[in-house]
Amino acid sequence: MQVTGIIAEYNPLHYGHRHHLQEARRLTGADVLLCLLSGNFTQRGEPAVVNKWARARMALENGADLVFELPVVYAVRHAQGFASGAVKLLEATGVVDYLVFGSEHGRCTELKALADFLARENLPFRERLKTYLEQGYPFPAARAQGLIDYHKEKGIPGLEGLTPEEVKDLIGHPNNILGLEYLQALARTGSTIRPLTIPRLGAGYHEEKLTTPLASATAIRRTLHESGRHALLRRFMPPRAWQILREEIEAGRAPLFLDSFTSQIISLLRRTPLAELRRIDGVGEGLENRLKDAARSAGTIEDLLSGLKTKRYTRTRLQRLLFHFLFNFTGEDASDFSPQKDPCYLRLLGFNPRGQRLLKFIKKRATLPLITKPARDLLPHIRASGRTARMWELECLATDLYVLAYPCPQARRAGQDYTQPLVITAGER
Amino acid sequence: MQVTGIIAEYNPLHYGHRHHLQEARRLTGADVLLCLLSGNFTQRGEPAVVNKWARARMALENGADLVFELPVVYAVRHAQGFASGAVKLLEATGVVDYLVFGSEHGRCTELKALADFLARENLPFRERLKTYLEQGYPFPAARAQGLIDYHKEKGIPGLEGLTPEEVKDLIGHPNNILGLEYLQALARTGSTIRPLTIPRLGAGYHEEKLTTPLASATAIRRTLHESGRHALLRRFMPPRAWQILREEIEAGRAPLFLDSFTSQIISLLRRTPLAELRRIDGVGEGLENRLKDAARSAGTIEDLLSGLKTKRYTRTRLQRLLFHFLFNFTGEDASDFSPQKDPCYLRLLGFNPRGQRLLKFIKKRATLPLITKPARDLLPHIRASGRTARMWELECLATDLYVLAYPCPQARRAGQDYTQPLVITAGER
Repeated sequence: MQVTGIIAEYNPLHYGHRHHLQEARRLTGADVLLCLLSGNFTQRGEPAVVNKWARARMALENGADLVFELPVVYAVRHAQGFASGAVKLLEATGVVDYLVFGSEHGRCTELKALADFLARENLPFRERLKTYLEQGYPFPAARAQGLIDYHKEKGIPGLEGLTPEEVKDLIGHPNNILGLEYLQALARTGSTIRPLTIPRLGAGYHEEKLTTPLASATAIRRTLHESGRHALLRRFMPPRAWQILREEIEAGRAPLFLDSFTSQIISLLRRTPLAELRRIDGVGEGLENRLKDAARSAGTIEDLLSGLKTKRYTRTRLQRLLFHFLFNFTGEDASDFSPQKDPCYLRLLGFNPRGQRLLKFIKKRATLPLITKPARDLLPHIRASGRTARMWELECLATDLYVLAYPCPQARRAGQDYTQPLVITAGER
Repeated sequence: MQVTGIIAEYNPLHYGHRHHLQEARRLTGADVLLCLLSGNFTQRGEPAVVNKWARARMALENGADLVFELPVVYAVRHAQGFASGAVKLLEATGVVDYLVFGSEHGRCTELKALADFLARENLPFRERLKTYLEQGYPFPAARAQGLIDYHKEKGIPGLEGLTPEEVKDLIGHPNNILGLEYLQALARTGSTIRPLTIPRLGAGYHEEKLTTPLASATAIRRTLHESGRHALLRRFMPPRAWQILREEIEAGRAPLFLDSFTSQIISLLRRTPLAELRRIDGVGEGLENRLKDAARSAGTIEDLLSGLKTKRYTRTRLQRLLFHFLFNFTGEDASDFSPQKDPCYLRLLGFNPRGQRLLKFIKKRATLPLITKPARDLLPHIRASGRTARMWELECLATDLYVLAYPCPQARRAGQDYTQPLVITAGER
């Protein structure tokens, strides 16, 4: 049985995602598509526009067969943490043959060459990188600049045919960056999973307007935020994804945006002492003072982010930091769930009949506990390991704070990580 | 110069309040009416519907001459803490001759007799009280029941003419209860301030509907909450109070209600560990577990309060407790600012020309630092005393969280306790 893994956010699922699922199946001849899905918060440091159970259903009704959760300790993380956690989880299922990821570049050989280069110690490049970091560039920009410089001077092995501009493109787009991290993580873990990339179709990742039927998720969220009218989205989402989104909106469980967390985050910042702020992952170097100052003048999350922004910190990094703060994700947590360490469990979100058949194999081969019903399956592991307990505690807290931002008060009950049933579907419609 | 003190919340100021101000001046022949006003949160454990600066202006334009702030450490407190803090502050001005308070009863002799009785140790009554408390009654109800029992059996000195029903009335109405506490506090501090009570006019304190032009503040807030239409209130508030309320609403700084704090409070409860909850004043005896449980199922503040309610805890006490939690007002704070200890400063909110003349005398006679400009006047005292620093810190935090609930994002800036100017008016219009 051929099994292909996909790492996704589906925030929300659009035609580009469906195309990716179809192509992944076609190109790898997969019998089963196994999807690892970000939970209620995403890598950009934003709440998902609709909760993880609804997005798992979107995936299962648009091509995926089995959906596991990418835990919040990896999902709301820099690219390396995100990719390492995800790759380790795919590996831990014991059944995945291929990892298919979308990239702006669309060709694996060159991405691999660059990943190999980045994985090796290379003093001249490291020194370039360090110089740019010292000049206050954020890490992604410093790395891009260092690579271009190096490529101009010495040429990166395997990329000899590329101009510096093309190298910049390779390292400068969000899906390429994640792809490079997947490739490095696969190499680091000595995984037998074979990587394959598919070019992204349609609008760019950052494209904010609904211009083509292949609109980006960003454009879809923007439309939802500004107009509040989901009917507008009918043309831009596969029917069963659109319908699920619509049902969630009508039930008062969506849509959620960054600014749904304004008072939770700013209130907390105003009342938290500096010493406690310093314990949060990513806070330090005086950032705790900037956070306090920015929270004083901010009336909205946008104000807060503007007040925090500097050359050194990207907006995405700051957003993740705000959620780390909200979840009380400390420096200690960051090191407990670092890219070097293994995840603690495999948490199932849903499946269709094809996925269900694969589950039997996963039960036999998985190297991590398989969690289908947390109250039953997780309890012994939580008792045995403080790290497992903490990983789950953070997941539950993230969900408990997420649901509190639901428009409908009756839907805000905590503990939904225990009470929400698995998403079981009849398969693709 | 005759100076009369008044302790008030004016949430918001209505015709009954204006009548009280006029009567206080007439009956005491006062040259100056000095008002001590609750800040942004009230004794019921609610946000004031409109901020303290606007309410100070309402007072100054409807009969008061000088307004000081009743600090949040006293304002959001049980009747004894509220009354003691207020009486000590009036005493500390060094200029107040009379304290005039409204009461349902309206006659001082009998209230005094009852206050004297409560101030004395009386074993049979104490034992009755203890029995009712052990049966799980909240303190006010247990005390009322104990007094009635005692009165039936032995007769309370000075109240011989009253039936048990009349005694119950004396101890069963909110303004009578506060009045009794004022009287006891005056006696305890050996104050020379003379108390005088005026019967409350018009609708009852708890009356929720706008039935008479002398509507209660509760009815006014209810109308504002339910209809959102301040125009409805024109007939029920003195013109200058109504106009100030209207201006605040139009500027996006009002109205605020308990449910404006839903996500601040429930989010914080969901993420705060039990051990930290236990440090909050009034939490203990397992209440920390009830708080966690209630926050899990609650989607609104109403849900939360329903989940917490028991025979032992009144709704008002629970509401105060939620705000103590939000402000991180600990058991240690409660003891630092207990009814036995003196306040740390006198904070001025505003004045008219008559009030300004009195300020000169207060500067000479006051036994506490007079604060007109906190950044200048408070700093040396904050440096000299941790208790003063903490009292002010709690005040500022309460305001910083209060303004965060303003409808208008631009108005939510923190630090308004430093930046808001004194309210200076030309006097009564």
